[in-house]
Parts: sequence; C-alpha cells; structure tokens
Amino acid sequence: MSNSALTTDFYELTMAQGYFLSGNRGPTVFDMFFRSHPFGGGFTVFAGLQPLLQHLEGLRFTESDIAYLRSVGIFTKEFLDCLSDFRFTGDLYAVPEGTVVFPDEPLIRVHADIMEAQLIESVLLNIINFQTLIATKSARIFLASGKGTVLEFGLRRAQGLDGAFSAARAAFIGGASATSNAAAAKDLGIPAKGTMAHSWVLAFDSELASFNAYADLYPDSSIFLIDTYDTLTSGIENAIITGKRLADNGKRFGVRLDSGDLLDLSVKVRRRLDEAGYPDAVIAASNELDEWQIEELVKRKAPIDMWGVGTRLVTGGTDSSLTGVYKLAAKGAENEPVMKVSESAGKSTNPGVKQVYRVRNTEEMFLRDLIALENEAPPVSPGNGGSVHCTESAVPLLELQLKGGKRRKSQPSPRDIQDRVKSELDRYPSALLSLRPASEYPVLLSEKLKTLKEELTRSYSDGA
Amino acid sequence: MSNSALTTDFYELTMAQGYFLSGNRGPTVFDMFFRSHPFGGGFTVFAGLQPLLQHLEGLRFTESDIAYLRSVGIFTKEFLDCLSDFRFTGDLYAVPEGTVVFPDEPLIRVHADIMEAQLIESVLLNIINFQTLIATKSARIFLASGKGTVLEFGLRRAQGLDGAFSAARAAFIGGASATSNAAAAKDLGIPAKGTMAHSWVLAFDSELASFNAYADLYPDSSIFLIDTYDTLTSGIENAIITGKRLADNGKRFGVRLDSGDLLDLSVKVRRRLDEAGYPDAVIAASNELDEWQIEELVKRKAPIDMWGVGTRLVTGGTDSSLTGVYKLAAKGAENEPVMKVSESAGKSTNPGVKQVYRVRNTEEMFLRDLIALENEAPPVSPGNGGSVHCTESAVPLLELQLKGGKRRKSQPSPRDIQDRVKSELDRYPSALLSLRPASEYPVLLSEKLKTLKEELTRSYSDGA
Repeated sequence: MSNSALTTDFYELTMAQGYFLSGNRGPTVFDMFFRSHPFGGGFTVFAGLQPLLQHLEGLRFTESDIAYLRSVGIFTKEFLDCLSDFRFTGDLYAVPEGTVVFPDEPLIRVHADIMEAQLIESVLLNIINFQTLIATKSARIFLASGKGTVLEFGLRRAQGLDGAFSAARAAFIGGASATSNAAAAKDLGIPAKGTMAHSWVLAFDSELASFNAYADLYPDSSIFLIDTYDTLTSGIENAIITGKRLADNGKRFGVRLDSGDLLDLSVKVRRRLDEAGYPDAVIAASNELDEWQIEELVKRKAPIDMWGVGTRLVTGGTDSSLTGVYKLAAKGAENEPVMKVSESAGKSTNPGVKQVYRVRNTEEMFLRDLIALENEAPPVSPGNGGSVHCTESAVPLLELQLKGGKRRKSQPSPRDIQDRVKSELDRYPSALLSLRPASEYPVLLSEKLKTLKEELTRSYSDGA
Repeated sequence: MSNSALTTDFYELTMAQGYFLSGNRGPTVFDMFFRSHPFGGGFTVFAGLQPLLQHLEGLRFTESDIAYLRSVGIFTKEFLDCLSDFRFTGDLYAVPEGTVVFPDEPLIRVHADIMEAQLIESVLLNIINFQTLIATKSARIFLASGKGTVLEFGLRRAQGLDGAFSAARAAFIGGASATSNAAAAKDLGIPAKGTMAHSWVLAFDSELASFNAYADLYPDSSIFLIDTYDTLTSGIENAIITGKRLADNGKRFGVRLDSGDLLDLSVKVRRRLDEAGYPDAVIAASNELDEWQIEELVKRKAPIDMWGVGTRLVTGGTDSSLTGVYKLAAKGAENEPVMKVSESAGKSTNPGVKQVYRVRNTEEMFLRDLIALENEAPPVSPGNGGSVHCTESAVPLLELQLKGGKRRKSQPSPRDIQDRVKSELDRYPSALLSLRPASEYPVLLSEKLKTLKEELTRSYSDGA
C-alpha cells in the first residue's frame, strides 16, 4: 500500500480521466492551507513535509492497481495505459518543515498538470494534516511543561500502525524527547524510552521482588511504577528499598505515578524521596495527560520531572483533525487566477500564485506575515508592497522542494526539524504561544491580492 | 514496518528480556477490554480482529530490527538470539468481529508465555482500539441516517495512510456503503464511490461546461457538485440543464450539497428537481457531518438521500480513541487469578480466566450479558450460575481464534462482518441504540467471579 498512487480519493481518478479524455488539461497551481488553528491555540507547527516528498517521488500505480481499476469498468484502456506510466513530475514549493504557520497561508504550492495535481491531493492532505496536527499538539504540551521532558507513549491508542508511526515523528518534531514505539525510534533515529507495566509488577511474588529484578537488569534506567497496589503505603516504600541498592552503587533511580491525584501524590512522593536521602530520584507521571493538565500541575508546582503522554498527544484528543484543504489557485499557461466563492464566507479562497513573507525586526522577532502575489515586488524595503519599515526585514517562506517531481533540497532529520521548531517558538511573543491566546498573529493580504480577490468575486457574481 | 514485531512499546522489550533472563517465565492469561463506550453511547462494535490475527500470524523481528536492538546496548546476545526466532505461539480467544460489546467484557483473551503475551500488547491494542472506535462511530451514523446510504469520504483527514485504510474497513463494517479511498476499496473488496470536486468545476470555462463534460463521461454515475458558485441561482439550474440530457437517455442523475444550511438547501433543491420533472434525482450532502447533525436533518425531514461523511467518521471526531486496555488476569500452570487493584476504583480488573455469556429470549432478543469464570458451569439452565430462566438461553461469546499462533476459524470478509453488525443491531431495544441512551445494557458478574474478586482485593490489602 505504501507508495501506491491508488491511495487517493476515487473521484480524483474519475476526474483525472475526464481531464485526460476531454483534453482539458494544462498547467495548474494548487494551494494547501488550513482555516483555523487546532486546539483553540494561536499557532500551528507545519509538519509531514519530508515524508510527503519521499512519497511523491516514489508514487506509482502497480500492475495490480491497474488491474483493479480495469475491473471497475469505467476507465478506458488509453487512460489506464497513461496511469501505468504515471509519475509525479510537477514542482512543489513548501514552507520548511517545522515552521510556525497561520490560517490561510499557502503552506504548499503545487505547480503541475491538473491531472497530476489532482491525483496527489488526498495523500498530500492526509500526510500534512495529520502530522501538522500532532506536531502542534506536541509543541503545546512541550511549552505547557515549561520546555520539560515529554515522552510520547501513544502506540496503543493511536489510529492504526502508521497513525502511531507518524505521530511519533510529529510528536518528536514538536518537542517530545522520545517515543515508546521501538519501530518508530529505529526508523526515525530518535530515542526510545519506557518504564515498566503493571503486569511486570503483578508477574512477581511481590512488588519489591519485581522492583529488585528490574534494578538488577537495568541499573542505569530504573523507573519503578509504584501504583499497582498502593502508591504511598507500598509503592514508594518498596521503590526506596530497591533504590537504595542502586544508590549504593552510584546509580540514580525514579518512580512513575500512573493514577490518582498527581499533584498530591507527587508532593508526598517527593517529600518521601527527599527524606530518604534521594533528592535526585526522578518522578515521572502519566495517565491521560494533556497540555491543560500539565500546565495546571506545573503552575501548582507539582514536583514532576518527566511527562508520559499518550492518547491525547498521538490523536489530538478532542481535536482529531486539522482542517487543511487543497484548492485551485490558478490555471493555464499564464497562471490565470481562480478562486472558489462560497456561501460560507470563510470558505472563499485566495486566488493566484502567491508567496508568504514573514516580517521580522532587528531582534529577529516575528512581527507579522504578508500573503502577496508571487509576481509583486517582494516587500523588502519601506513602502513596497506590504509596507515594511526600515527596521524590519521580510523573508519569503515558500521554497522549491520538488523540481519536476524530484527532491531538490537537503533532507533535514527529525532532530533538525525539532531544532527549527524550538528556535521558531522563541521568536514569537509568549502571549501568542499560551494555550488560550489573547491575541492573534497578524496575517495580512497585499493590496494587489486584495484587489484581485474583489475583482474576481465581482466577476463571478456577474454570471458563472 | 508492516509485520515487524518491533512495532511495540519499548518497555515490552525490556520487560521481555527481564522475563527471559530472570527465568520468571511461564503461562499467563491476558484480557483485552474497555472501560466505557465511546461517543456517550450505549453500545460498541468490536472490530479489527481479522487484521490483528493476520498481523500476529506473520509477526517477526527482522535482521535489521535485531541490529537496531543490539545498537541500543542493553540487550544480551542470548535474548536477541531468542528474538530472532520469535513467533507468536499462543492461543487467542475473541468475540467474533462485528459483535456488539459492552464495558469490562473480555473481548480478547490471550493465553501465552508472559514474554509473548507482552510483546503483542501494544499492537493488539492499537489495531483493536482504533477499528472498534470507528466501527462504532459508523454504526451510530448508519442508525442516525435511518439505515440509509453512508459514504466514507475521510482519506484526506484521516490519521496517516493506515489510519485511512483501517478507518475505511471499520466504517464499512459499521454500516457505511462505500469508501472514497480507492486503495482501500481494492484491498478490502468493498465499493469505491465519489462525486466531483470544486476544482473540477473551476477547471472549465463555466459550471455548465464542467457538468456536461462529466455527464458525457460518466452517464451512469453523475452527481453534480452545485455549490461552487451559488447553489440555488446557478448550481441547481445548471445541474437540471445537464440532467435533462441524461434523463432524455434514460439515465438518473444527482446533486451534492457541500456548504450552507443543508436543511434549507435540500428542501429547495428537492422542490426545484421535482418541479423540473426529476423526482428520482438524488441529493447527496456532505460538509463536516456527524451522527448528531444527520439525526437532526433526518428528524426535520431534510430530503437527503446519501450522506458523505469524512473527518468525524474516520477519526472519531471529539472522541478520538477507545480506552481499551490489556491486563494480566491469571498466571502459572494452574492459571492462578491475578488482579490490579487501583486507587481509581474503575481501574481495578476482573481476575481469572473468564468467559462472556450473552443471554437471549425465545425471540432472539438480547437481554443481558454475564461475565463468569471459564471453569464454572455455563449458565445454560435455570438457577445455574447466572440464573437463566427457562425461556432464555445463553451463548458463550469468546471463541478460539488462534491455536498455537495459527488461525483456526474461517476468515469472514468485511461484508460478512457488516452483515453480522446489522443483524446484531436488530436484537437490542432501540432505546439502547439511540445516540444518547437512557438505559444501560446489563452486564453482570457471576457470583463466583464476584467472590473471587472480593477475596483477592482483601488479600492484596493485607500486604503486598
């Protein structure tokens, strides 16, 4: 299934045949963008680009795909022959993976024959929507923890095996330190981490025996799960007994809380560890955590050192999708601007071939973005296009990533992308990064784009 | 990645080595169950079993997996050699896929050496949790539509490519008629369906030209998307013009609404189609639908014939995970019962090797379930175990699916499983199936199981 071009919405294929047979083909420009930030937040972290580029480069219809389409009975031999040779040969511009992005900004711009541009729509949206959602969730959790240690523990609650794999990648990009998913850790080159399960504790004759057995095997990474019987009367006491054996050999240990009142328990467990002489023993916490609970625990000074976050990190919790869309922006050899005018006002699109400029001040802080037409003069100097002041500079965000369907840029690793996210997050006012932001980051349209949009809206309403 | 046994939580591997090296191995019994229905509903549809069985049968560590684990530096040569030969050789009991199930019931019971039982935990939960979530969502949508035609359109908003594929399967099982995902349709042998996109309409010189081109190509399956410019002044009128050409040749056509007030628009579009002489032209609707909106539209008699449901069907919407868990229930050659006693009351488990019985009356309606110990006499006659009356009968739900790691039962197709779901849904009172049920289906514990649970709780609190 992995690189099959058949992983597309069926209507892309019927429409593709339509373009092919009707001869109504030709160059098009499509924009991928989203309409509102997930999680009620004030920022979104763009992710999924490298997997998308890799996928597009290898996109093929297999013989068995063609045989299946033949069996459907509505595709001509000529069209199926064309699909047999199908490669994505378009150009693709995108903002670098790990960039902080905002609603309505084109994040990806595809220049391709309409047939090719359409055939990649579903898979492009699938990969980008999901990884962007999870990278954003992860960045929110990372910030809520005070840029602490977040472990992604979501494999068992993720949406399918690739849901888990992609989420491990996106969570790492957004700021998580490690994943519990061993296959993801291997393939992505990121750290794998874990503690122990209740079943381990139950598999021994006593809690203490289970802790001792673990400490003997993994003296350098023992974190004891202390809530199987009773956290305060049994778990922490047995952890201290086993921990003493480790400490006597110069090893640190830790405990994990997985149920109950995490604030109250962490305070009492911390006190007990300190009393026993182990101020450097770490406390990890898990149990259906999300950024809101972590923020609250941090605010109330819960002495928790590591956050194991599963379900809500890898699925997004109550916001389980990003509303990313892929819309025709221009067509024809001259890139004639096109827009969709919707009865739902927010669903109208921005026409034309566009670039996004990010305006920053001399301290490298980001001030606002400007969406402009590609053929406008870039707003590099005062009074030009987006009225950039002399203390400001503007950089274009969309960069050429695929040229004729082949990757052009170097391929950053998940760690490189995580570094970009962290450095980007430092360049926005903290009010914008709060879980429920009071202000919005300004995203402006250039005068030329605004004028074009008004003209097109008028011309469509005059008669389509 | 597909069948790699490395798709597991890292702690399963560290614990597995612990069992291997400490010699603390031996037979165990694990239960998979969930704690509450998703979506605030009164029932859950069990799904994902066939993909899980297939996955487990082929489970292997590849050479590259072993090389990765060696590089981590904490695994011994003996253990890695053991993993090289690893196969899942346990027995697995499960309720048939497509069965309606309830909280706390063991849905899967694994009998295996603790090392094997633990290594499959993460992947078992991943597959079952997600597909069960989506099959349940789909059944709710199917029921809300009045058992109508539901099309799964979720590929672009699903959580990864396998998230989309698995969701297509589970949505079909729960009652959807087709998927938009061509690869899923091919691999699962289920229908692929679709209409047309806004980009198709925009790619032609006029809306009418785009409709005509489509009708010429697909006279047997033309559903025109009518909201690109204006639904009532433009879209429906152009659809009727093109539709006349189809109708003149004895073909039916349809329209799709994708924005605006679906009740108001569907009533007006229906009236216009009827006036024009096309009472059999179908109306499809889409746009962020879920079971609640569909129920409301059906209640208010919106004349909608087909429901295209995407995001919220394939991700679960605000409930993006099922809280399924996998817990040790017994250990040792004698299957000594084990339970986890939790400070959070709801998190304590049911100990011992268990069976679930479904009690039905002479009309084959389901009355209640009974969770009993496997070695109790089954409640087949009055006064025995669960006090089944003489007008009632009880059938065990858990059936042997893997014997020594090999599939034993026939493998039902997605369509077979959908049939089971539909026939199951007919056997419950409709109050239980409503979106917000007033009553709960009774799930009882046998007296012997209750007694065992009380004894174990007491013995643990006496000192662990």
